Amino acid sequence: MVDGVHFTVESTPWRDLGWKAIASNISDVAAMGGTPALALVTLGLPPATPVDDVKELYVGMTEICREFGARVIGGDMVRSPVTFVTVALTGIATGNPMVRTTAKPGHLVGVTGTIGGSAGGLRVLLDQNGVAGWAADELRAIHRRPRPHVPEGQTLVTNGVDSAMDVSDGLADDLAKLCVASGVACDLWAEKVPAHPALKTVFPGDWLDLALYGGEDYVLLFTAEPQVMSAVMDLLPDDAAVIGEITDGPAGTVNVWGPDGSPHLRGGAGWDHFI
Amino acid sequence: MVDGVHFTVESTPWRDLGWKAIASNISDVAAMGGTPALALVTLGLPPATPVDDVKELYVGMTEICREFGARVIGGDMVRSPVTFVTVALTGIATGNPMVRTTAKPGHLVGVTGTIGGSAGGLRVLLDQNGVAGWAADELRAIHRRPRPHVPEGQTLVTNGVDSAMDVSDGLADDLAKLCVASGVACDLWAEKVPAHPALKTVFPGDWLDLALYGGEDYVLLFTAEPQVMSAVMDLLPDDAAVIGEITDGPAGTVNVWGPDGSPHLRGGAGWDHFI
Repeated sequence: MVDGVHFTVESTPWRDLGWKAIASNISDVAAMGGTPALALVTLGLPPATPVDDVKELYVGMTEICREFGARVIGGDMVRSPVTFVTVALTGIATGNPMVRTTAKPGHLVGVTGTIGGSAGGLRVLLDQNGVAGWAADELRAIHRRPRPHVPEGQTLVTNGVDSAMDVSDGLADDLAKLCVASGVACDLWAEKVPAHPALKTVFPGDWLDLALYGGEDYVLLFTAEPQVMSAVMDLLPDDAAVIGEITDGPAGTVNVWGPDGSPHLRGGAGWDHFI
Repeated sequence: MVDGVHFTVESTPWRDLGWKAIASNISDVAAMGGTPALALVTLGLPPATPVDDVKELYVGMTEICREFGARVIGGDMVRSPVTFVTVALTGIATGNPMVRTTAKPGHLVGVTGTIGGSAGGLRVLLDQNGVAGWAADELRAIHRRPRPHVPEGQTLVTNGVDSAMDVSDGLADDLAKLCVASGVACDLWAEKVPAHPALKTVFPGDWLDLALYGGEDYVLLFTAEPQVMSAVMDLLPDDAAVIGEITDGPAGTVNVWGPDGSPHLRGGAGWDHFI
């Protein structure tokens, strides 16, 4: 995570930065059906960085590590003109890890929880006028402290799901990546997407775009044959939902359909890592 | 490794940067008596970075990994205003790892090879006038392609040495760190330091300061009881040498003695990671 690209030192509390840097890595482990284990943390810091800020960063890291059974065991700290945080995390998988390359036409597409809360929270935080109320508070909390879906990943991998990834760059974007990797296409049913209730409350006009094209949700996106999907849905939290179907169209194509069966037009953009 | 701090994009070939980023990590594993295993590489790159440069970086990484039995198995690539390379490397140790906290008064101090070649090579590379000849070529090669002492570390750990670290920030500086960690002091005999022969040739006036206070040598520095030291020296390459003795003086004090028994005055400075 790089200052000015993935966060800003001015607007992100160091404790939250620590939490999120570890959270995104734990989420990657969860997406393969693993449990997180040992982390190495490398910090690039300008010499003027206050020591207390660095301590706060580690408090945030320690908080999430404790909750998910991970440990920071080492790393490095170097001088840098730009603040950055790099985390390498090992995970343990007892069976075959879930991957992105095994989605097949006829598979249903599922998510393990509500979508869009983090993107909504970011928009609330950036709003100059301030947004009040329980729903805004909840979105802010989701953005600041995302919770990786480790137990959900365990449920998937132990019940026959072999195709999964986490939603970090936005649902539609990540689904396209999964389809590219598997050489398949997909229909996504917009009205089935489990947008976070607080998102609908705070953003009655934009909630669907935030859910489809926002990022950092850290729920798991997965595909499975209908029978496996049905069995797994009974075991997942109530927020989990079936949101689409894999087809044999052009690899990487994601067709988003509105409730009336017409194509849903994209009003936002996903996150691009590099450009 | 951060552009402008540990290297510069203008003066460091990308292939050498790849080699060195992995080398410094392999050296840390070697210093504990381990063998390198699996690497995760995170790159921070400005969007204008040519793809061919990134490929060259990986060629350099692959070259050194092949030589030392390591593998790059993954990582991440993010946008950043400043180029940086972060490596996390796992290593395997079959016995107890060597550490910095077990040096004891009466131990002799050894190094596993020649010192100062990398610092000499850097000075040759930075010389605007250019330095020619076999010795300058050799120093340049040492600086560009340092070789971690993995087999030497294996020799140490399997023959009773339990106190070691690698020389990355400069011999005197690193020896002071080892002494701080162990709560001991040390006498360092300057004339026993195995300065690289090419270093004496190219820098007849400065070679000792370059050997004592230069960096990135990646030889191993270790301490052991005289009997263990004697046995280990027979097994190490001919360049290895006994260069001093641990004493019970103030923790972290390194007294450097000249050939005539007078204190050697420091003419340079070690590398400081942060200030």
